[in-house]
Amino acid sequence: MQNQTILLASRPSGTPTADNFRFETSAVPAAAAGQVLLKTLYVSVDPYMRGRMNAGKSYVAPFEVDQPIVGGVVAEVVESHLEQFPVGSVVVGNLPWQRYSLSDGKGLQRIPTGPAPVSYFLGLLGMPGLTAYFGLLDICQPKPGETVVVSGAAGAVGMIVGQLAKIKGARVIGTAGSDEKVAYLKEVGFDEAINYKTANIPAALAAAAPNGVDCYFDNVGGAITDAVYDLLNKHARIALCGQISSYNDAEAPVGPRPEGKLLKTSAKLQGFIVSDYLPQWPEGVKQLTQWYQEGKLQTEETVTEGFDQIPAAFLGLFKGENTGKALVKVA
Amino acid sequence: MQNQTILLASRPSGTPTADNFRFETSAVPAAAAGQVLLKTLYVSVDPYMRGRMNAGKSYVAPFEVDQPIVGGVVAEVVESHLEQFPVGSVVVGNLPWQRYSLSDGKGLQRIPTGPAPVSYFLGLLGMPGLTAYFGLLDICQPKPGETVVVSGAAGAVGMIVGQLAKIKGARVIGTAGSDEKVAYLKEVGFDEAINYKTANIPAALAAAAPNGVDCYFDNVGGAITDAVYDLLNKHARIALCGQISSYNDAEAPVGPRPEGKLLKTSAKLQGFIVSDYLPQWPEGVKQLTQWYQEGKLQTEETVTEGFDQIPAAFLGLFKGENTGKALVKVA
Repeated sequence: MQNQTILLASRPSGTPTADNFRFETSAVPAAAAGQVLLKTLYVSVDPYMRGRMNAGKSYVAPFEVDQPIVGGVVAEVVESHLEQFPVGSVVVGNLPWQRYSLSDGKGLQRIPTGPAPVSYFLGLLGMPGLTAYFGLLDICQPKPGETVVVSGAAGAVGMIVGQLAKIKGARVIGTAGSDEKVAYLKEVGFDEAINYKTANIPAALAAAAPNGVDCYFDNVGGAITDAVYDLLNKHARIALCGQISSYNDAEAPVGPRPEGKLLKTSAKLQGFIVSDYLPQWPEGVKQLTQWYQEGKLQTEETVTEGFDQIPAAFLGLFKGENTGKALVKVA
Repeated sequence: MQNQTILLASRPSGTPTADNFRFETSAVPAAAAGQVLLKTLYVSVDPYMRGRMNAGKSYVAPFEVDQPIVGGVVAEVVESHLEQFPVGSVVVGNLPWQRYSLSDGKGLQRIPTGPAPVSYFLGLLGMPGLTAYFGLLDICQPKPGETVVVSGAAGAVGMIVGQLAKIKGARVIGTAGSDEKVAYLKEVGFDEAINYKTANIPAALAAAAPNGVDCYFDNVGGAITDAVYDLLNKHARIALCGQISSYNDAEAPVGPRPEGKLLKTSAKLQGFIVSDYLPQWPEGVKQLTQWYQEGKLQTEETVTEGFDQIPAAFLGLFKGENTGKALVKVA
């Protein structure tokens, strides 16, 4: 039985390509005392991983060249020397892009059987769901009747943000990159959805938000963000979650300075990463699971098949290929 | 007895000039029932007033052309039909740039005799002091040993921010526009002070903040702010108080986008205006007065003499002519 691993072959400058990844074959290892052997079922590909491909300090440590790429993975325990992870149990954790991995159990979480498909623990009930949950509910705190804008609304995080804002009684506007995504957003309850690739962004946002913008959940940055800044109401709250529009820029991005607009409106702009809320994760998963079971939250996955397709699925994030959570089904 | 009023003659485009103001002479009015007649003692000139000279929505309503300029004024009651403001009492309020004004008492505050010179109620114990107090203590919340940067540090607000940060046990770095101001900041306890007109700003700030920046109180914006963004520590807090570097720009200012940097550090950027804290003003004045009386807070005034010098004193703000609070002594 052969194992396969995907390593960072080189750091990209600008948009990453398949050449930045390398596949390696080795023997499947055996679990030693205190270890489990995991068989990868699903691999999560996420925009934030682009940042880890660069050298230099960021909110997560960079990947190392010639070392495995590590990310969200759902796996099945196939050999176990750890009582809490018996053979056959399914776990989620930060694991290498690898068909089979060893783990000492640290950071692994067992996925309960029953509430939802196991892949949802990489999406709605995992990191993206918690990112939406804490960013929107702790930072933005939307009130009934307020207007919430979400950029990257058809992505893994954005589609949940919009639905959470609806649960809280807000009017929700999403931006996305195709007419199909716009249609999907309306299906899951967004009041307005804008195709930023074909619309005049400032005019479309102003028309969709006649009462101004109270909350903005930003996954994208750039021109969409510039337009939202011009519509902020007094005491607006902005959760700064991602900036996918500039992740592949070789040069530092330049644009209109936002400070004057934030000053005039006494607005708050708060950068965050889901790990800022680590102690509250169990509470978040519990609430998201409940809303899902009550039918108040829907989710969507774009699933690519095959271990060898992982780099392509990752690169697809930057072409807007996914609606909802982008996953690769490995086994 | 003749009265004199300064009106907005025209809206400036770019840097304002004396031509944007017009003096008018009229008779001194008499106080009717329910009114007081006030004799202006001190007029406050403040950077935020530049914004009110423009048309369009901002956090304070714009001045109207051919109407009096209105701002912070300390005045003496010379005629009274209001019990709470007897003749001879001294008040502070938002009043026209006028030698004599009528008031129905709304928004007027009587200045207590004893704790400090009456002019301090336009500075340390007035709007600038409260701006420093709430912006630093509520938004930045500096902890002992943290590093605080203040731009416009030798201004009315900045000099108080730095001293408050020292009271809270932080290390304080200020930026200012002359060697004299830098010397003044060191005198009142700033650990480091940088002349931004002669220093290499990014290098000087990096050298002054070897442990990074935890709090930034921004009065200025532009290149200083850009450099601070590159030094932010995880969970940094930025109080956005003013942007004097761009108040006179005819075009919207452009610069490096800050979002990526705020995202990487989970930093908070909060715009504010002192009126956001209106219910807490009495608490703020009480605490500032106590620290002043205990010798923990010093203040500095740049006082210009003469009603006819008010426009010049205001224009001087944008040339960096003042150290500490800029005031005009009228009578």
